[in-house]
Parts: sequence; structure tokens; C-alpha cells
Amino acid sequence: METVAGTSLIDPFAVAVDVDKGEMPEATNRQVRRASDMRGYYVDERALERLIEQESDPLHYEVFEVPVPNEYGHLMYCISKLQPGVVGEECFMTKGHYHTQVNTGEIYLCLRGEGYMVMKTSDGRFDAQPMERGKMVYVPPYWAHRSVNAGSEPLVSFCVYNAEAGHNYGDIQTEGFLKRVYRRGGEVVIE
Amino acid sequence: METVAGTSLIDPFAVAVDVDKGEMPEATNRQVRRASDMRGYYVDERALERLIEQESDPLHYEVFEVPVPNEYGHLMYCISKLQPGVVGEECFMTKGHYHTQVNTGEIYLCLRGEGYMVMKTSDGRFDAQPMERGKMVYVPPYWAHRSVNAGSEPLVSFCVYNAEAGHNYGDIQTEGFLKRVYRRGGEVVIE
Repeated sequence: METVAGTSLIDPFAVAVDVDKGEMPEATNRQVRRASDMRGYYVDERALERLIEQESDPLHYEVFEVPVPNEYGHLMYCISKLQPGVVGEECFMTKGHYHTQVNTGEIYLCLRGEGYMVMKTSDGRFDAQPMERGKMVYVPPYWAHRSVNAGSEPLVSFCVYNAEAGHNYGDIQTEGFLKRVYRRGGEVVIE
Repeated sequence: METVAGTSLIDPFAVAVDVDKGEMPEATNRQVRRASDMRGYYVDERALERLIEQESDPLHYEVFEVPVPNEYGHLMYCISKLQPGVVGEECFMTKGHYHTQVNTGEIYLCLRGEGYMVMKTSDGRFDAQPMERGKMVYVPPYWAHRSVNAGSEPLVSFCVYNAEAGHNYGDIQTEGFLKRVYRRGGEVVIE
């Protein structure tokens, strides 16, 4: 069969996704970020160090996937699971990233928990979309994106993006996300 | 901001997906196929005509979506809903298609019902993956694909594909899918 250069032909397959619990038990890849991986991301650095020390560097977030080729035409998918909690007053969050192929988007279908998808562009546009079970957030091409858990249970989404997209964590770490999400006296505040 | 030619910058948005019922109530596009749109697809043509006549050309399947630009880097998503039933002994199915951009894949996350994703390549490879709630089927680039409802309630999936993929219904209509799914005396048979 004629294939197109740069897009591999593979066999179809299926993966079980628990859409109620938000789990992918058959995942062959599990990326883990612990509290210590988040140094430099939160405002209250001392609160993060206390968390690392007092709770034995707890789990922060995980990504579960069954990989496909990182090539045009393939679609990468994963379960993203972010623990609940605060660092000082700031809600737990992912590092956030642009895609290396900056003009590629991502789809998040939230299955569990409560929070926000916080987004920005390199020229300073900002957006935050509430996440809860059944909310599908469209992260358009060019938008850096970060999940923030504003609830009391894990924030879990099923995600799909172009397999060739790649992750660029550096630029957004330098720029910052413009706004942060805090929990103050029971209220969630974006500022 | 610098954008890449061919990929529009749009604002983020969110769409509600009922992941229990398998519905997208806010969809702005609804494509409908009725029984009469399926002429030429089933083995038993007379049974199809009887169905059209006796049941007033019933609903066959629907696709619900909120469109995004049909451009590289954007991701199209939809809810696909296929009614249960048989035409003669053959289970209700979608027309099936290759993507016009043949080297692009698609992800189906089944939310409801029971059936199969039936797939083939232009050089005659065949595959069928069972679908049920929580089964994610990976349709790789190059594979024509069709949903078949082998159960008694609607077969519903949340689907994601490259927004530039396009639909090519003609080639697979000429080729056929190699195998068909029948219900015979309570048994589901692929042959």
C-alpha cells in the first residue's frame, strides 16, 4: 500500500478507559510529577518545601498513556490526573506548556473533579475555562495551557492532541501564566 | 503574535458533553442520516426499502458537533450516535469513510451501547474492534472505518480527528469493507 512519507502504518487497537473513575488501567506509560518537580512554579516557595518535607514529596500529577508514533496523522491521547491541594494558598496545578509545534491544539474532556484550564498566548491573551465532569475544553493552536485543581478530589481529563505536537515547558516557565488560582477562606480566586 | 500560515488563531471555548448519556446538547451542527441515505450499503436491499416504507424512513445515525476551522493544528470532535436495528440480518452501520487526507487517524471513545469498529486498508487488511462503554478505539492513519451497532441501544462515541482530515466516502463504497456484521438467532457474526 502507498503510504505518505512521515506517517507510519500501524494496526488498529483498543484501550480501556474507565470513564467513571477516570482511569486507564492498561496504560504502558506513566509520567509522574512529584511536589519536588514543581520547584519554581508556585508563589510560596517555602510552603512547597514544607510540603515536600512533611509529606515525603507527595504525588502531584500523573499522565497515563499508550504511545503511538510521534508523527503527523497520529493522535496522542492520555489520562491526566492532578491531585487536589494547595501550596500556601495556591491551588495545585500542572507545569503547563506550549506545544513545540506551536500551531497545534488539544482537547480535554474532563471526567472527574473541579478546576480550571488556564491558558495564554505569547502576546498576552489570557483565558480560563472551568472544568468539571463532562466539560470539554478546546485549547486552540498557539495557546499555552495548564490544569488547576480547585476542588477536593483529583482533577481527571481524557486528552487528545496531534502526536507530532511535542511539549515546550521552557517558554511558559519564563513568561508565566499572567494569573494564578488561589483558595482563600473557602473561595476560589483567579488573580 | 506570529501565527503559522494555514492555522487560525481562535479563542478557547468549552462544550458540555454528557458522558453518561452520550450527548452534546450545545452542538450547533447536527448531521442526520436516515434509512433512505443508506441505499446501496446493505446486502438486503428489499429489507431496507421495507424499513423506509413501513417506519417512515427512520433515523439511522447522527453526528453532533461544534465546528472549528478545517485547518492543520485544529482538532475536530463530535458525538456519533448510531441507532440499533437490523436490515434483514445485517446490523445497522454507518457508511464508513477514509479520510481525504488519508494519512490521518481518529480516536473513538465509546460512551454507550455495544458494537464494532470495522476497519480496512486499501490493500485489503481488515480489523474489527469491539466497542462498549469505556473502550477507546484507535483508528490509525490509512484505515477506512465504519461503526456497527450490534446491541439493543444506541451506539454512542466521542470522536476526535485532525480538523483538516476530510471525509472520503466514495472509495470505500466502491471497495466494500470485506466483512459484514450480522445478527442471526441472537448471535452476532462477522463474515
